[in-house]
Amino acid sequence: MAVNLTEPGPLLPVGGIRLGTAAAGVRAPDRDDLLLLACDAGTSVAALFTRNAFCAAPVTLCRQRLAERTAVHGLLINAGNANAGTGAAGLDAARQCAAAAETQLEGMVLPFSTGVIGEALPVARISSAVPRAAGNLRADGWLAAARAIMTTDTVPKGCSRQLEIGGRTVTITGIAKGAGMICPDMATMLAFVATDAAVSRSTLQRALAEAAADSFNAITVDGDTSTNDSLVLMATGASGAPALAPDSDDYARFLAALQAVCGTLAQAVVRDGEGATRFITVRVEQARDRDEARRVAYTLAHSPLFKTAAFAGDANWGRILAAVGRAPVDALDLSRVTIAIDDVPLVAAGEPHPDYSEAAGSAVFARAEFTVRIQLGRGRTAAEVYTCDFSYDYVRINAEYRS
Amino acid sequence: MAVNLTEPGPLLPVGGIRLGTAAAGVRAPDRDDLLLLACDAGTSVAALFTRNAFCAAPVTLCRQRLAERTAVHGLLINAGNANAGTGAAGLDAARQCAAAAETQLEGMVLPFSTGVIGEALPVARISSAVPRAAGNLRADGWLAAARAIMTTDTVPKGCSRQLEIGGRTVTITGIAKGAGMICPDMATMLAFVATDAAVSRSTLQRALAEAAADSFNAITVDGDTSTNDSLVLMATGASGAPALAPDSDDYARFLAALQAVCGTLAQAVVRDGEGATRFITVRVEQARDRDEARRVAYTLAHSPLFKTAAFAGDANWGRILAAVGRAPVDALDLSRVTIAIDDVPLVAAGEPHPDYSEAAGSAVFARAEFTVRIQLGRGRTAAEVYTCDFSYDYVRINAEYRS
Repeated sequence: MAVNLTEPGPLLPVGGIRLGTAAAGVRAPDRDDLLLLACDAGTSVAALFTRNAFCAAPVTLCRQRLAERTAVHGLLINAGNANAGTGAAGLDAARQCAAAAETQLEGMVLPFSTGVIGEALPVARISSAVPRAAGNLRADGWLAAARAIMTTDTVPKGCSRQLEIGGRTVTITGIAKGAGMICPDMATMLAFVATDAAVSRSTLQRALAEAAADSFNAITVDGDTSTNDSLVLMATGASGAPALAPDSDDYARFLAALQAVCGTLAQAVVRDGEGATRFITVRVEQARDRDEARRVAYTLAHSPLFKTAAFAGDANWGRILAAVGRAPVDALDLSRVTIAIDDVPLVAAGEPHPDYSEAAGSAVFARAEFTVRIQLGRGRTAAEVYTCDFSYDYVRINAEYRS
Repeated sequence: MAVNLTEPGPLLPVGGIRLGTAAAGVRAPDRDDLLLLACDAGTSVAALFTRNAFCAAPVTLCRQRLAERTAVHGLLINAGNANAGTGAAGLDAARQCAAAAETQLEGMVLPFSTGVIGEALPVARISSAVPRAAGNLRADGWLAAARAIMTTDTVPKGCSRQLEIGGRTVTITGIAKGAGMICPDMATMLAFVATDAAVSRSTLQRALAEAAADSFNAITVDGDTSTNDSLVLMATGASGAPALAPDSDDYARFLAALQAVCGTLAQAVVRDGEGATRFITVRVEQARDRDEARRVAYTLAHSPLFKTAAFAGDANWGRILAAVGRAPVDALDLSRVTIAIDDVPLVAAGEPHPDYSEAAGSAVFARAEFTVRIQLGRGRTAAEVYTCDFSYDYVRINAEYRS
């Protein structure tokens, strides 16, 4: 069902990073559901986590460990169980699983979990699978890694980019998972990006925040922010390229490549949104500020009525008007509002556009991808949000999720 | 599919009010889809309308006419076409239909519309049906009226209450329609309530605002605020009871009866929510203020993941935690949060309750009605919001709405 999304092309190895997977039987038998990622000594690590107050135990643990600034030797990720809503016992469970990996990697490991909320993490099964994952660590393990972290995803998600810095080829490769409970407030459910560029931790954190703003922080499937959202960016320096200086031209070029990777991964999450049959870009222009533009865009992107009409391919544009009209914007002047779907104008100066026809609107809604463009006539700022439609399969997937 | 909702019992006539219906063929043939309500001279009228910036033409017209304080002689309501998103032509259409009714009632008539957005109102069909509706005006026409204003509703909605004021029996009778695009910001889609109490317009408006706060302004089906929400309260004075003084004991008793009528009607809209199979009360307690309590309640009531789990009867309480955790509340202290579903404790002091069992949770989620009770541990204010689950039929109804 994923919209214009196929398995990623070749995922390029990143110097200093090795990945191994194993079947731990966390939830389903007979699939690799555990990923161990090992990074070389000296790797810088930046991360963004969910703002959900009920954050998962591994998120709490990661935050603590990164705050202590201990050197990171690797990541351990399980699918099938989120270890969220599990209280103090969940923190212990996350620590024990991480410890099994720390024995293998001889240094501190950050734990991540994704899957069902509110069930006890099967520590023994995970811990006993860790040595098997460590036994097959390899530089070209990215695609297998992308598969191992999937839950309701139907397609593994990954992306690579290369650029030259100081005469050296630098690689950025990332993987992500997520299809439901997607309205990241810092990052999507889980995404891991690595580069062999040499970047200090503070510069890396800044680049990650900048790249997330228009990628992972601009998507929604269902408006439900996860308890486990985590986005991690690692820089090993193994390329031999000179260290990135903030505000340099090289930084700008590195950021552009990072934004391309994060944008591709984040949009892949929406394309593989639970039950998705359409990929919709909501672009709001002429807002007073970015926050206002995003509020209007998210109001439409979350509207069940707009999303079910998109599923039906029914150009019921009244639902677009209704959503824009209820967006939390003070004193919206309708006589300045313009709305179009792709190249078809719907509303001009707050009134139905005289050239609009049902046939033209239906042609756009029949497309697997289209853009709703809303001009507010209040300012000069624009923002985009990416979302999908709302189908029978969304209900089926979420009604049957635990059965 | 409506949840514990059957046709209303006897709807009591209200002195000074007569109702007549007719088939105008606005959208579907062979059904009464037009309602003319006539009120005696001297009737006070109070109203609340949608805050959607893209409000419908009849809403704009009603606001203008009520602001002019012209005496109201009646209401004209059509189902099947919302006359919203129709620009200046829509205002003309609303004026013309009202004019046809004004010829019959010899005085100003307020127009209301509900149905599809963005299509031209069939003025000629409606205007030619008005004399037929006028020809069957009758005091006991309330149930037929409730039927005539239905769109995706499956059950007509009405309620009557009586009380004594100054030795006279006073009646309050109301009808409502609505099943989708329900997240009223002033009122549900359309509701009309009448009483033969004698109430000044200013006192009536105050009573209406007070009654709407915990009824029509505390429900959601899908979070989509309509362009046409209108709630009208008429007081004819025909009971002969003395005029209600604000802040009197009689006012308090009248308000309680009015709240009962509005509460029943508003909850009926949720029980008949599109595709609804469960009726869910979200009660938030120990909030700092009402606004905070409502923000938390609506975050859960709008969560597609919670609503699909409710549809499945799956006690996936992690989704309740995740929604509470992402609610827009500053510095929520989880260690003070308590959550229960009906009589089953889920979370105590931010941790899973030790006595919780999947069997106990499933028993609650299997009920057609249950309450989620969330205590925030921040203050003393409580608020309730009423919602329904999210089913295949919600998608079907809204995917097929215009076909």
